[in-house]
Amino acid sequence: MKLVSFDVWNTLLDINVMLDAMAVELSKLMGTCIVDVVEGMIATRERIKRMRAETTGDPARALEESQEMLAELLGTDIEIVRRAAARATLNVGDEIVLPGAKKALEGVKKKGLTVTVTGNVMFWPGSYTRLLLERFGLMGFIDRTFFADEVFAYKPMPEMFGKPLETFGVKPGEAIHIGDTYAEDFEGALRAGMWGVWINPEAEEPRKIHERGFEVPSVEGILKVLEKINEKG
Amino acid sequence: MKLVSFDVWNTLLDINVMLDAMAVELSKLMGTCIVDVVEGMIATRERIKRMRAETTGDPARALEESQEMLAELLGTDIEIVRRAAARATLNVGDEIVLPGAKKALEGVKKKGLTVTVTGNVMFWPGSYTRLLLERFGLMGFIDRTFFADEVFAYKPMPEMFGKPLETFGVKPGEAIHIGDTYAEDFEGALRAGMWGVWINPEAEEPRKIHERGFEVPSVEGILKVLEKINEKG
Repeated sequence: MKLVSFDVWNTLLDINVMLDAMAVELSKLMGTCIVDVVEGMIATRERIKRMRAETTGDPARALEESQEMLAELLGTDIEIVRRAAARATLNVGDEIVLPGAKKALEGVKKKGLTVTVTGNVMFWPGSYTRLLLERFGLMGFIDRTFFADEVFAYKPMPEMFGKPLETFGVKPGEAIHIGDTYAEDFEGALRAGMWGVWINPEAEEPRKIHERGFEVPSVEGILKVLEKINEKG
Repeated sequence: MKLVSFDVWNTLLDINVMLDAMAVELSKLMGTCIVDVVEGMIATRERIKRMRAETTGDPARALEESQEMLAELLGTDIEIVRRAAARATLNVGDEIVLPGAKKALEGVKKKGLTVTVTGNVMFWPGSYTRLLLERFGLMGFIDRTFFADEVFAYKPMPEMFGKPLETFGVKPGEAIHIGDTYAEDFEGALRAGMWGVWINPEAEEPRKIHERGFEVPSVEGILKVLEKINEKG
């Protein structure tokens, strides 16, 4: 194995912390009840996740489209959505970093492997996610970040997984991607010819579930998976 | 007049404050002398400004291209440039807000006009500039922001000036743009059929320099220009 690619949201950072912070800011900017905002965000999120799984929608407009959909559902302006995202990015605390995230990144880096981040975007740009990874001390372990709104592709599209491989001259079979969303992360990685690791909080321990696939209960599981692959090789 | 569009850098925010902060972070991340970093940034900036004035270069890659050019000239990785931009965005203080910026925005807003921001990008994304406008209390006066990396066009391209007009259903002759860069801001606005205001620090007072154009010594000059236009109309 030469390269390990990490999903960000619910793999390294807790998306609920970010969504809650953004809902607070949206309700302040709009002067409306936070419960309605949260409901609107959940509904929009589910709709977009379904669209992405089917890889419908223009990748070059994926971020703007998600912001527009949320603004429309909440009856507000797209700029208000963007302002709330900016404020949330500035205001969230370090509880946003998931347990084991730093240990996982550090462990992979220590093995001498290339560490990348391959993330989809929704409601806020990849640049804000990069800023959060920097703010909370994770960027020091990451060699390169690839976000959907900068690559003009999104997971599970093969182009999205291909970008880090191309950048570092690594073959699909020498790379592994870990993430929490089965369709986007696990199936997407396998379809791109890479190894895949699915974070399934209900899994009891790292377990092989496919010729090139594993499930793990949390992100630190990547370290055990790498050991398992190494034993075989 | 119905709409006033503001350039950001050296119109509302001081670009030297941001470039200095970024140079500090680059020199820390790279472990090199800050003088060399600053020289590299100035050289890259001049090269890009020339390219933009000629509207050569792919608008969809304008930001990434500027980061790549800087990384290459400094002999570092593009991710280091992006990390330095993230850190600078978090670290700059409110000295970044130019004198008169708040007064100008507030004054225009009080006249009941639509206020937009129309900004080019270089080294960091428009989303970071939006975050700075939010952080320093200017977004409350701004109805909508248009950044080159989100619009996929840049000043002086007419498409860039057309975007706010289209969004708010305003005719070019009912809109005015103010900025400090003659080719990008002033000539670009006039060529798009809008009114233009050039911030020329050497100008002594607001002065008409074209059928639809003025020069002003600083951003607050927009208020006097609007009065002048109103008297005529």
